[in-house]
Order: sequence, then C-alpha cells, then structure tokens
Amino acid sequence: MPAYQALEARFKRLSDIRGALAVLHWDRQTMMPAGGNAVRADQVATLQQIGHELLISDETGALLEQASAEVAGLDEWQGANLREMCRAYAHATALEPELVAAQARATARAEMIWREARPRSDFKRLLPALEEVFRLSREEAAAKALALDLAPYDALLDGYEPGLTSAAIDALLDPLADLLPDLLEQVLTRQREPLPTPGPFPAAGQKALGLRLMRTLGFDFEHGRLDESAHPFCGGVPDDVRLTARYDESDAASGLMAILHETGHALYNAGLPKAWRGQPVGRALGMVAHESQSLLIEMQVCRSRAFLGYLAPLLRETFGADGEAFSADNLYRAAIRVGRGFIRVDADEVTYPLHVVLRYRLEKALLADDLRLADLPGAWNEGMRALLGIVPPDDRLGCLQDIHWPAGAIAYFPCYTLGALMAAQLFQAIEAAAPDALAGIARGDFRALLAWLRANIHEHGARDDTQTLLTRVTGRPLEARPFLRHLEARYLS
Amino acid sequence: MPAYQALEARFKRLSDIRGALAVLHWDRQTMMPAGGNAVRADQVATLQQIGHELLISDETGALLEQASAEVAGLDEWQGANLREMCRAYAHATALEPELVAAQARATARAEMIWREARPRSDFKRLLPALEEVFRLSREEAAAKALALDLAPYDALLDGYEPGLTSAAIDALLDPLADLLPDLLEQVLTRQREPLPTPGPFPAAGQKALGLRLMRTLGFDFEHGRLDESAHPFCGGVPDDVRLTARYDESDAASGLMAILHETGHALYNAGLPKAWRGQPVGRALGMVAHESQSLLIEMQVCRSRAFLGYLAPLLRETFGADGEAFSADNLYRAAIRVGRGFIRVDADEVTYPLHVVLRYRLEKALLADDLRLADLPGAWNEGMRALLGIVPPDDRLGCLQDIHWPAGAIAYFPCYTLGALMAAQLFQAIEAAAPDALAGIARGDFRALLAWLRANIHEHGARDDTQTLLTRVTGRPLEARPFLRHLEARYLS
Repeated sequence: MPAYQALEARFKRLSDIRGALAVLHWDRQTMMPAGGNAVRADQVATLQQIGHELLISDETGALLEQASAEVAGLDEWQGANLREMCRAYAHATALEPELVAAQARATARAEMIWREARPRSDFKRLLPALEEVFRLSREEAAAKALALDLAPYDALLDGYEPGLTSAAIDALLDPLADLLPDLLEQVLTRQREPLPTPGPFPAAGQKALGLRLMRTLGFDFEHGRLDESAHPFCGGVPDDVRLTARYDESDAASGLMAILHETGHALYNAGLPKAWRGQPVGRALGMVAHESQSLLIEMQVCRSRAFLGYLAPLLRETFGADGEAFSADNLYRAAIRVGRGFIRVDADEVTYPLHVVLRYRLEKALLADDLRLADLPGAWNEGMRALLGIVPPDDRLGCLQDIHWPAGAIAYFPCYTLGALMAAQLFQAIEAAAPDALAGIARGDFRALLAWLRANIHEHGARDDTQTLLTRVTGRPLEARPFLRHLEARYLS
Repeated sequence: MPAYQALEARFKRLSDIRGALAVLHWDRQTMMPAGGNAVRADQVATLQQIGHELLISDETGALLEQASAEVAGLDEWQGANLREMCRAYAHATALEPELVAAQARATARAEMIWREARPRSDFKRLLPALEEVFRLSREEAAAKALALDLAPYDALLDGYEPGLTSAAIDALLDPLADLLPDLLEQVLTRQREPLPTPGPFPAAGQKALGLRLMRTLGFDFEHGRLDESAHPFCGGVPDDVRLTARYDESDAASGLMAILHETGHALYNAGLPKAWRGQPVGRALGMVAHESQSLLIEMQVCRSRAFLGYLAPLLRETFGADGEAFSADNLYRAAIRVGRGFIRVDADEVTYPLHVVLRYRLEKALLADDLRLADLPGAWNEGMRALLGIVPPDDRLGCLQDIHWPAGAIAYFPCYTLGALMAAQLFQAIEAAAPDALAGIARGDFRALLAWLRANIHEHGARDDTQTLLTRVTGRPLEARPFLRHLEARYLS
C-alpha cells in the first residue's frame, strides 16, 4: 500500500519538525539569553509554517484519500494511525492560512499586553486585544464546526481532547459544581491546620531530592533531563524528555510536587509505544489523558499518606530538618490542606474544579457571544462568589490571572478537571484490580505501578479514544463519582 | 524588484532553518542525554533536507535568473547579497541528491568506524570506509568543478573559502614548508623552558575566569552563553552565540586559551552587519577569515607578553597560586613554548603550519588519485620526517588523528594556516595604522581593538571577498611574510 507508506514518511517528517520545535521551545525557557528572542521567534514561526504547509498540502490530501480507499489492507494500529492523520489534516485544513496568521499576531499581542496589564490589574488595557482574540476564535470555531460537523465550542475542544463535547463536560462538571461547595465547607470545619515547616530549603537540595524522586518513579535519565524555568513544564520528545522545575527556598513542597506532577507527564511520554515513534498514533491521547497521568502521580500517589511516609525521612535528611513539623503526619496534613483562594494554580484538589467550572462556563458564554467581554470582570466575580464564596479584590486576582485566553487557548480549562476525574477513576481501578501495584508506594517502589500504567495506558498511544481506553481499563466511561469518592475518603474520613 | 525581494524572504527562511539546526547541534554537544541521539539525528537530517530542497528548488532558480536580469536596480549590498545567493545555489545544485545522500551515509559510517579505529591504531579497519568517502568526494569535486568552472580540488576549497585556489595556497604554504623547519631548529635551541605551573585548577575557577575574560574582550552575554562540551566550539547564531569550553584541572592554560580562541570566532559572528541578519551577505566571509579572527585574538593578542602581564595576577587570584611559576614572564614562556609533536591540535604556532602542509599535500594527492589510500600511513610518516623531523610510532598518532577526512571535510585544513597568516597580516596593519587600538591589551582594555575589528572586518559581512577586504585594510593581498615576521619577532628576538 504505497499511499499509506508515503503518509508514514510524511508524518515522520512532520514529527521531526515538531521535535525540533520542542527543543527550541525548551531552550528558550531554560537556556536562551534574552537577546536571542527575536531570531528565535523567527525560527519557530518558520518551522511551524513549514510543518503546516507540509500537513495541508494537496499531496497530503490526495494520499489520505487514496489510503482511506485501501483501508482494508491496514492492521489495527495502521488503521488508527490513518484515522489520526485524517484528524490532524481536517483540523489543519479547516482554517484559512490568513486566519492562522491573524491568530498568531493577535495572541502574540494579547499575551504581551497581558504581561503588563495583569500586575497593574488593568483589564481595560487588555480588553481590545482580548476582544480580537475571541473574535478570531469565534471564526476558528465556526470554520472547524463546519469542517468537523461539531458545535463551535466542541470543535475547539476536539483540538485538545478528541471526541470531547460540552454535553459530556456538563454531565461531569455540573455535579461537582453542585456538591463541592458543601463538601468544601465540611472539609474546612474538620481539617487540622498543619504546623509550619520552616526553611530555608536550598535549591541545590531540592534539585538533588527532585532528581532522586524522578529516578525512583522511573524517569530514565538516559532519555531525559531536569532543568529550571520560570514555569515548570514537561517538553522534548518521548526519547528525550525535558522536564523543568522552579525552586522556592522558603517552600520545598511546591517545587517537589511540581516535579512529581511533571514526572507523571514525562512517564506517559516516555512510555508511548516505541514501534510508533514519530507517527500520530504513537502520540498521547489528548490533554485529559495527559493530565490524568500527571495528577495520578501527584494527587493520587504523591499526596497520599503512604508516599509522605516514604518522603518524610528523605526531606529531613536532605535539609537537616527535624521535629514534629517534618513528621509524615504533619507533611501529609500540609500536602492536603484545603482553602478558599483566588488563584487557580495555587488551588487544592477540592477547590480546583470550582475554578475550572467558572472558566468553562464563562468561556462558553464568551465564545457564543452570550457574554460581552467588557462584562467579564463582573461575571467572574459573581461566579467566584457563587462557587467559592469569595470575591477577588481586583482583576489581577480575578479574571486577569490566567494566560490561557490571551494566548487563544479556549476550551482548554475543562481538561484539567476531567484529568483529575480520570486520575481518580484509574487509581481506584488499580486499587481494585491490582492492589499489589500500589503496595510499593510506602516504600518508594513504583515499579509495579509504572508497569501497570505502561501496559494499560502508555503503550496504547492514541490507538483508541480516551473513553474506549478508560472503559476497557475501568469498566466505565469517564465519571465524576470516583473523584468524589476520593475526596470524601481523603478529606472527610 | 519583486524577484530580489522574494529571494530575500526565501533566504531568510533558509537562515531560520539553519539557525534552528545550530541550536540542535549545540544542544546535542552540551545538553542532550545519550538516548536522544537517534531521534536528534532524524530531526537534523529532516531540517537539512528541507533546507536543501528550498535552496535547489526550481522557484529559487527562476527567481535568481529574474533578479540577475534586474541587477541594475540593486545597491552594492543587495548586489553582493544576490551574488552570494547565486554562489550558494550553484554549490547546492551542482550535486545530485543521490550523491548528497550517499555522502551523508558514507561519512556517518566512516566517522563511526574512525572512533573505534583510532584508539586501536587500526588504519586497515578504517580503509574501506575512508576509500568510499574519498570516492564520493572525487565525484563531488568533479561535479562542482563542472558547475563552477574550477579545478576539482579548488571546487571543494570554494565551499570553505570562496575564491581560494590551490595555486594561491601553494604560493603561501611552499615558503613556509621551506623556511619553518630551519626556523623551528633555531627556536628550539634558543627557547628557555618554562617552570612547571602546578595545579590543580578547579573547573569552577577556570569557568569564572573564562567568563570574565570573555566579557572583557567584548562578548555580550545578552546575546550568548558559555557551556561545556567534549570539544570547544563556537555555535549558535549572531544574536545568540553559543560558545563551549572544556576544563582540564591540571592545566588552566589550555582551557582558557581555547575560550579566548572561540571568543575570537564569537566576536566576528556577533559583529556581522545587523542590517543583513539572515541574508547570505550578512554571513562571515569564509573559513580563512573566520580563523583569522580566532587566531588574531588567541595567537596575536592573548599569547602576547602584554596580555599575559594582564592575565597573570588574575590567574594567581583565581587559583590562589603564587611564585615565579605564575609570573607573567614564566606564563608567557609557557604560552609560546615550541616543540616537535605528532598531534596537530596540540601544536604551537611554529609547527602547526607544517602539520597543515602535510595534510594539504596528501589530500590533494588522494583526491587526484595520485596517492592510494592504502599507502597513506607510509606517506604520512614520510612527510612527518621531512617536515617535522619526527615519525609517529603508530597511526593513532599519525594519519588517524583527525576526524576531517572520515567526516568528508577535504580541502578544509589549509584554511587553518591561511587564517594564521591573515591574523598576522591584520595585526601588523593595526600596529602600523592604529597603534592606539593595541595599547589597551596590557590593561585588559579591548574596546579600541574590537571597534577596529568591527569597523574594518566584522561589519562588512560577505560583501567583498577576503582578498578585496584584506587589500583594502592592509594594502596587500594575503601573504606569508607578516606571519614569518611575527614568528621571528616573537621567537627569535
């Protein structure tokens, strides 16, 4: 089947271009001197454009048509690979090049203005640029809706998590919006305040401990490294994973938990099917599945009492710390402390979904033009009062806190919480079906857990969709109930 | 003139691809974990191929033809830019894609075998792979000779230093081959052995001092950085220069001198004309001019008695060293110590040209098939006896020492020594015309020197050819005499 083979070569080329872009991105965040910014932006734009042209070219379209007619000759993996190629092509060809270019300009401008407007809490300053971003996102959603036969918001969702719809999100998030405010109230009245854990925690010690924990979790330093950046991320490619951290010397937990979170992403990337490197079916499923892997490691495993029993002596040893504050029990109390706060990225796992519900409902209304952007600050504050019972004193702590909308990432927020639901559902399935895989956590032995994740999630790449995979592994499609059960068990029992 | 403007956009795109490749190369040498090697090789091959396809495309050819017909409308810089575009196109289109691919495979294989054969001194093991590399280089030389109307060896030379011919090299190197053996004899009988400078010299101290010297010489860390690699190099792009070093804790001088050498390259790159970034005319002239800038800084400036007077107290302070061994006079004696040795990269500036003469004569004979590769070890040893008066005990210290030929870099070696000649000629022109520019060396003040190099060399990019530029600046084309004068002044007076 020459058409399919030609497509594999073409998509491998595209994967090499994206892999090069991943190195350029990592370098920009970790190594590049400030004066390299302008030429790096040119390099990135050029490679992105070359990749886009390769994907949307008439040859790609003709080959896809030809291969789709010969689909009977393909095995299951090849068939899924072709399906993913078609999906990528459909997304890329849905948009006129002029719209893509206009979006690149508009989001670059909005991001730049946002960086100035946020510290000054000056929403009015951002408003015109943000209006332009949303105007273009509406165009994008309309064009993709037409091409993919989806509702506009769902067409954007499909770019982050294939097959996800707002109807499915409503069914998952509405119960959380209903139940979590009460649950939060109960947790706040019951939880015991942890003792403060006084520092300082030198960055070198945090890094050494972070490296040790990464290795323990199964991160392979023959195929990756750890560096520093302003915002931790997991980048690179599956055979060369670039993870970054940030160290706050007054607070060891935040840096370490971020490393553990990113290690969850890293293990997923490294565990993707080796035989399908460089092909669409060899990639991760989507943002929900990816976030499920980071949150399974961070929230389900590493904020557990079992793991903190393992971590506590390592922490004491690394920083020469001592006393009740550094006992496993107190560290656990600190790791699962819940509180009402304005900032999503600082939120605990009980309040985080409420931050997401707020953003999800607002961005749907904004995209549909049911809410005017000028009215966003008021609507934001109303939503915060209704969901979390607090009102931000200014827009810096309110609707200006996230970069997502200025960056044009609309329909991204729900993936965070759906990832948390999926993490809880997976963890409980492991508890039920393979309790041995969890027995090592208290000893810092993650081999069985990693083997389970590899065999059941990572090595499947994007062959099935998320719901199919989850149903096979847990017996059910994605649900809110396991997550609520997890919260009740951890915070109310 | 739409054709010329379209070419500028096209070559800017090519420059972005090459800039991305420069980051990938730097990362591979400094940061990449070993397990990333295979996918990185794919990324590099893909970007190289995309760049090559862009350069040799029919559209590029048609635009060059059209622009060449409208050349009257171009100013001096634009005209030179078009000339450089035509040169790049002529080189790239001279070769069939099959030959380029065969060379990539053959050199990758020969390099790999060379890495194993060299430590074992096993020339026979390398021979078949090296024969294949030379066979393909003969094809390359023949194809380029036809396309560029040059002799075969000169056609390869033109790829490293435009306009350079073996007739010109003979005229420059033959006198050195005649005179240097006697001069070497005289130096060896006269020179005073330096006292040993006992270490250790911790890597952190070497790096701190290296950074300080780079800054002093004018390296801008807003537009570049210093890292470590197995072999020091200067990479990156003009606005983001990536320099690397290697530290031997028993010998501070070798690491520091390598940093100073690479800083010479870095200052040239950073000083290239800002208005022509990303265009062929904005690039450096060629390998001779580039090596002249590194050797001017290392050999002419930093191995001078004046510079060592400035460096000596910094060295003593950095490493807490003391005594006569760390006096400026002794450090100077060590910096200019001359000796007969087998290894080119360890050679001093008196014997280095003899190593180059040997390689130049051999590679010309090998390319012309006047010497069989199987006879290379004998011919090498003969040449060493005739030129340097010593015979390597094995091929590891003989014809297996350099990676250039296995890597397919034939006609590269002469550029090193022509660069040394150009450095001496430039330095003496500065001494005569702008002695003030050199007055600061003893104080570690290089501002006037850098300003002179910028105004007279760097900012001219590739607008003129090397001989035109050198004649304008020094009044003469490239000559051996200033270099010989320099050696006599430094080593015999």
